[in-house]
This record gives sequence, C-alpha cells and structure tokens, in this order.
Amino acid sequence: MQAWKDYLDQHKDRFLEELLQLLRIPSVSARSEHKGDMIACANAVKQRLEEAGADTVAIYQTAGHPVVFAEKKTDASKPTVLVYGHYDVQPPDPLELWHSGPFEPVIKDGKIYARGSADDKGQFYMHVKALEIFTKTASLPVNIKFLIEGEEEIGSSHLEDFVKANKELLKADVVLISDTAMLSMQNPSIDVGVRGLSYIEVEVTGPNRDLHSGVYGGAVANPITILAKMIASLHDENNHVTIPHFYDDVVESSAAERAEMAKAPYDEEEYKNDLGVKELWGEKGYTTNERTGIRPTLEVNGIWGGYTGEGAKTVLPSKAHAKISCRLVPNQKHQVITKLVIDHLKKIAPPSVTVKAEEHHGGDPYLTPMDSVEYKAAAKALETAFGKPPIPVRGGGSIPITALFESELNCKTVFLGFGLDSDNLHSPNEKFELFNFYKGIETIPYFHQYYAEMKG
Amino acid sequence: MQAWKDYLDQHKDRFLEELLQLLRIPSVSARSEHKGDMIACANAVKQRLEEAGADTVAIYQTAGHPVVFAEKKTDASKPTVLVYGHYDVQPPDPLELWHSGPFEPVIKDGKIYARGSADDKGQFYMHVKALEIFTKTASLPVNIKFLIEGEEEIGSSHLEDFVKANKELLKADVVLISDTAMLSMQNPSIDVGVRGLSYIEVEVTGPNRDLHSGVYGGAVANPITILAKMIASLHDENNHVTIPHFYDDVVESSAAERAEMAKAPYDEEEYKNDLGVKELWGEKGYTTNERTGIRPTLEVNGIWGGYTGEGAKTVLPSKAHAKISCRLVPNQKHQVITKLVIDHLKKIAPPSVTVKAEEHHGGDPYLTPMDSVEYKAAAKALETAFGKPPIPVRGGGSIPITALFESELNCKTVFLGFGLDSDNLHSPNEKFELFNFYKGIETIPYFHQYYAEMKG
Repeated sequence: MQAWKDYLDQHKDRFLEELLQLLRIPSVSARSEHKGDMIACANAVKQRLEEAGADTVAIYQTAGHPVVFAEKKTDASKPTVLVYGHYDVQPPDPLELWHSGPFEPVIKDGKIYARGSADDKGQFYMHVKALEIFTKTASLPVNIKFLIEGEEEIGSSHLEDFVKANKELLKADVVLISDTAMLSMQNPSIDVGVRGLSYIEVEVTGPNRDLHSGVYGGAVANPITILAKMIASLHDENNHVTIPHFYDDVVESSAAERAEMAKAPYDEEEYKNDLGVKELWGEKGYTTNERTGIRPTLEVNGIWGGYTGEGAKTVLPSKAHAKISCRLVPNQKHQVITKLVIDHLKKIAPPSVTVKAEEHHGGDPYLTPMDSVEYKAAAKALETAFGKPPIPVRGGGSIPITALFESELNCKTVFLGFGLDSDNLHSPNEKFELFNFYKGIETIPYFHQYYAEMKG
Repeated sequence: MQAWKDYLDQHKDRFLEELLQLLRIPSVSARSEHKGDMIACANAVKQRLEEAGADTVAIYQTAGHPVVFAEKKTDASKPTVLVYGHYDVQPPDPLELWHSGPFEPVIKDGKIYARGSADDKGQFYMHVKALEIFTKTASLPVNIKFLIEGEEEIGSSHLEDFVKANKELLKADVVLISDTAMLSMQNPSIDVGVRGLSYIEVEVTGPNRDLHSGVYGGAVANPITILAKMIASLHDENNHVTIPHFYDDVVESSAAERAEMAKAPYDEEEYKNDLGVKELWGEKGYTTNERTGIRPTLEVNGIWGGYTGEGAKTVLPSKAHAKISCRLVPNQKHQVITKLVIDHLKKIAPPSVTVKAEEHHGGDPYLTPMDSVEYKAAAKALETAFGKPPIPVRGGGSIPITALFESELNCKTVFLGFGLDSDNLHSPNEKFELFNFYKGIETIPYFHQYYAEMKG
C-alpha cells in the first residue's frame, strides 16, 4: 500500500490543479442559461476518467443533463463497486455574500473556496484520483464503475429512467458515494443514512390584480397574510409538523439507538456560536442530532410576494409564493408526503384565495445496515486511515437516488463522505478542506481493498 | 358660466395632448434612477402653469424631489384656494402585467391608460386647465395657489419642512385636492376623509449565513417560518389587529353615521366579481365600506426571503423581510402606531432570531367637517355639474400631508376627486376615464364660484 501513498504524494499538486479546473465550470443544473456549462462539465469529467485509466467512458444523454459513465474491469471474479457522484452544483446566490467568485476557486488557509468544492466535485474527484493511483500502480482489487450525473441538485429527475433502462450496465455489488460529511477529522464518522426529500412550490392568489392597499386594504384577503398564516400553522407550539399523517410511517429509533447516537461529540454552545444564534429551535423531545438525523422536517426555502424593491409601495398584491421542502426518514415515501403536503395546503386555504401547489422533485430516505459487509469495509477503511473507528451518524441531507439503487440494482449503498458540516454547502463561500481532499484519496483505496477481502 | 364650457369644448383635444405629454415622463419618486425624470417633470409642470396664466411660478428645491409652486392673484378681498397635487407616481412593477407601456399613454375605450393617469397627474392637471379657462375668460372669482409636490407616493417626506418654512407663501383659506375617487359618474360622491398611513419594513435574521436545509433543517429557526408566524399573529380569527393599543385612539363612528354610510350604493357580488374572489375578508362586525373607510387596517405590502429563482434550492436562509403598512383613522397618530407596530414585532419575535424594523414614512388621517363652507361649496359644485347631490364617503387611501395643512396653515381641506376605484391605482394598467377628466375640468370652476360666494 505504500506504493499508493507515494504516488499520491508525488502527484498531489496536479490532482488539486485538475480539481480547480473542474470548479471553474459553473455547472448550475437549476438554471437553463447554464445548459452549455453542464455539457462542458460532463465532457471534462469524461476526459479525466479516461486519463485516470478507465477502459470505457461514455456520455449518455437524458431528457435533462447528461450522465457520465465509466468502467475499469479487473477480474470478473472480483466484486464490482459503483461510484456515484454528481458534477452539478447549487445556484451560487446570494452572490454578494461571497468573498471571492463562486466559480473562481481560491485556496486560503488550507481550504478550497468555490461552489461545488465539497458538494460534490471535490468529493467525487477523489474517486477519479483513487482510480488513477490503482491503474498506475497496477493494483486494483475490484472492478469499478462510475456514474457521475448532472441533476442531483434538482432531484435527479431523469436518473431514475436512466438507471431503469441500464441495469446491466450499472450492475454492481455496492454503491459507494462520497457526498456527505464527517463530524471532524478528529472524529471520523460514517453517515449510515440520508434523509429523503419532498420539494414543492405553492402559489396563493387573492384578488385578480394588484390592488391599492388603501382603497381595498381591510376588505379583501391579502395572499401574503394568508400564506403566512398557512405556513405558520404547519408547525405547532412544540415545532411538530401539523400535517395529518405526516409522521405515520416514521420508524421511531429505539432508546438504544438514540443512546448510541448521543455519543457523537456535540457542543451546543459551539454550535450556536458558529451559527450566530442565541437559541436553537426544533421539535420538542429531540436533541439537535436527532432533529437533523432521525426526524422528518418541513422548511420554507423561499418566499416572495408584493413589492420587494427599494422604498415603499402601498400595494395589496394579487399573488404570494413559497418553496417548501420536507426531509424524510425511514419509512416515509416522498410521493406520499408530497401529496399530503399539497392536499393539506389546499385544504387549509380559506375560500378567499385559491392555491396552486406543485412538486419540484423528491426522493426516499435510505439507511445502510450497520451489520453489512459494505458498512464494515467502510468502517475498517476509515479506522486504518484515521487510526480510530468511525462514529455512525444519521445524515440530515438527501441523495434522492440512493433508494432507487437499492430497488433497481439490488445493492447496498455506503456513504464515505469527507466533507464537514461547516463547508457552507448550498451557501455562499462553500469550501472543502485540502486535508480532507487528500485524506479521502488516501482512504478510498482501503475501502476497495477491504471490501474485496470481506466480500471475497 | 357658458363661456367656461365653450372654452373647454374648443380646447379639449389640446388639454388631453398636454396631459399625455406629462404622462410620458416616468416620474417614479421611489427609485433613485428616476431623479432626472423627476426634475424634468417638475419643469414641465412649471411650464404648463405659466402657460395657464399664473403670475408667478417657481420650483423650490427640497432635500428630496422639488416642489412646484404657482400663484394667480385676483383680488386681496377674495378668498384664496390652495390646490395641492403631486407629479410623482408609484413604481410601475410588475411590468409584465401591463397591456401597454406604463409611460406610453394609450387611449382605449374612452380611457387613458398610463401610470399616473388618475394618481395624480390627470387629476391635478384638471386644475391647471381650470386656471387657464378662468384666465382666458377673465373670470377668476378667487385667488389661487398651486402646490404640486414630487414625494406623495413616498410619504411626502420633505414637504413638511417646506410647509413649515413657507407658511406665508402658502397662506390660504382652503386646500383643494383632487387625488381621490368617486363612487361612479352616476353616483357622484365626496371623500370626507382620508386614512393616515404608517409604513415600516422588517428584517428577521436567523442564522448568520444561508444554511443547507438538510444539514441544519429542523434544528435552527428558519427566519421565513418565524416571520410567517409573526405576520400570522397580527390578525386574530375575527381579522382584528392584535397589536395591543392599536385601536385605543380610534373614534368609533355613531350608529347614525354608519347608517348614512350604508346608503352608498354597493353590490357585493359585483365587488367580488370585479376582484375575482369567491369570498371577502375583513374585520368582523363591519361592512366592506366601513372596513375601507372608518376602520384602521394592517396589510403586508411585500415579503421576500430565501431562494426565489427558477427551480429548487434547499436552503435555510439567514434572513427574511417584509414591508408592512397600516391605514389609520381619526384620531390615530402615525408616530404612535409606527412605534406600537415596531415594538410589537420585536416583542413577539422568539430569541432564536433578531428583528430589525424601521419606519419608511407616515401621515395622520384627516376628516373634512360636513358642516363647513368648504364641504358645502364642493357638494354644490358637484350637484350643479352632475345634476344630483354627492354622497359623502370615507376614503380608504392616504394623503399624508393633509393633516399638516390643517395644523400648519390652519385651513380645512376638501377632496374633490374624479377618479374611480376601478382605476387600478398603484397597479398595472392604471387608467383615468376621459369623461371624468373633462367633467372634472367642468366642475372645478363651480367650486371656486360657490366657495367665493359662500365665504364672501
């Protein structure tokens, strides 16, 4: 294994430079004006996989953004690992809060600042470099496939069709994903689950046109006020979601599981200081880690209506809008929750307004069994690289496609994430620690090694 | 009086063309990029007043947009009428809902479509043309002054200083304002009051940066949710404003006054159909006309926070904002209400967020006594022009400076408005009926005539 480490040491500057090139491509999947950038990014990923030594690399068109697939065959008797990642990124807004351009990566204090540095270009690229190390040192202990998509940040809308249509191509023994975080480099951890997602947009219409708030104010329902009342009613005084049947399918964690989770290091003062808040907020009866891990949530991601410009305008607007998403836990189903939320919003709206609500996208939650070979190989890899066993945690984010891999490809997923919660994912000044980038490239070969041994 | 009418008939096409020229100037006081247009508009108003025969016309600079003053002296023994109006207009947004350009006036079906056509360029310009008629027919029965300002739509922020510093210049027996509406041309009416205004902007801050709604959602207060809860709590189940002491200074109308108001024609089905709503909304125990006339209100004029662009972004935002305004009735004071609202918002915010709230502008409500010479002269003028006595109504809008005229100039204001509620004030497709424009020019000379007779 020393050969792997030596190779990494000799080429680390080039590895970083290649990542920075990827980060300079503004591959924002949500915005139609970046369609060309998405194609350029897929092509760049394809080229890097070829250079890393994959036998076959191909770009597959979908009804949305293209998918990059690659394969390196070693030996049919060895297990096959499918690495999943995504080359698309979140929109960079609000731009004015970035200290440097979101697509002009800057290295500062050992951190790579750029949109996508941690989520997920920096993380999937560790796997591309691990492949290079294996091929250059002629030591790949598994067969390896790559599925790098361009729609993770918009719900993997077209990946489902792609997976269903290409089961043979994607056939594997395990799916390996680096798109999550660790507690810290001192406290390596493994996300044993990701939450599902149900994302909707709602439009409340009051009068058929914007009105003068003096002439009509007080006599006609204001859609902003009504939307505010609807949103306000979605959580009760214990911050429990009030939508009927919302919690019906939630698998309650056992006291033993919760006790195990509570062992993860957590300092509430530090957590509050980092966020700049005086007080936390959340569902009564659960700790912060439970609230973001084992409990479903409902958050408003955006709201707008009426006059939002400079100065004052005395308008009673015709419409108000909100984007609302729920994070889901086993065994909630996103289709069920999406319907519950939409039906509920329509039901609670008074007759003085009309409500339109539509799904943006969704995905089901996923749990990696801790007694599986997949989890054990990942845990051993981390223990080898970090010198201490990882803490299993339940991740708060979502990787919508994971549940589909299980149902369509019939294989487990393991999350080998090297980000940190402080990486400002989806926020201005997203960053990825250089240390984590290199530590990830060092750890990944151990996973393949141990997985081949345990599986074999 | 036939001479007046003949003159109007002979020159009506030119009068209209002059108004259209004024409407082409985008004098949006709220937007700093229109500063040059504001100066151009003030100059155009000055020129038209000179052409109409005023003895002195001058532009006065203020700390904000300039004020146009004009005077036509007839006879020191005759009473002096001060005509107040404003050349500034509301922002035209949302632009996409206009059928033609807001500053490209179009005449269609007997209506002038343009921002400012009714509010207030079309209405104050009737007075400029009435002056021309008097000077050309050598028959002005009063002395007349004009005060046409450029900040009415942003709260007349600097007019207070101007009025206080120029009491002698502005000295008059009555203030005459055409900036309100009539019930209809079949049902002429006079607004005997305007509501006051208290306009604030509130900013709610949760975490110190935008967060990933999966990683942090459920554990940190979402400022949109908190703002929604705050807004939702401002009205109770009877749509009564819940802010303590909000109604303390409200003068309750007597049963007799309410019975008189109830005589105004009102068809609820027609009202709902015009607005496209299935059900009205308002304070329990009051009719629609009372809700918009004798009762104070609280409306949200704008709200924004989080991701409002195309597609989906799973963000838990740092900030959420709202613009909120109250309409006030006698004897509420805008400074008192503004403080009540700001203090209340800060008080009800949970410790998990911080709240900033600031005043945009305000003004006190005003009532014209119905037993005054001023009201009687206006009522007689309308009766003469329309052939039936006007119905006294309480207007819902605000003319923030009116209360100041009473306190500083010690004279009553009378509202001789020729707009209609359906004029789309502050909304896309603002219009002013050609019939109303000409009928206004015809009616105004009667007011001067009767006022001179009654006062003399």
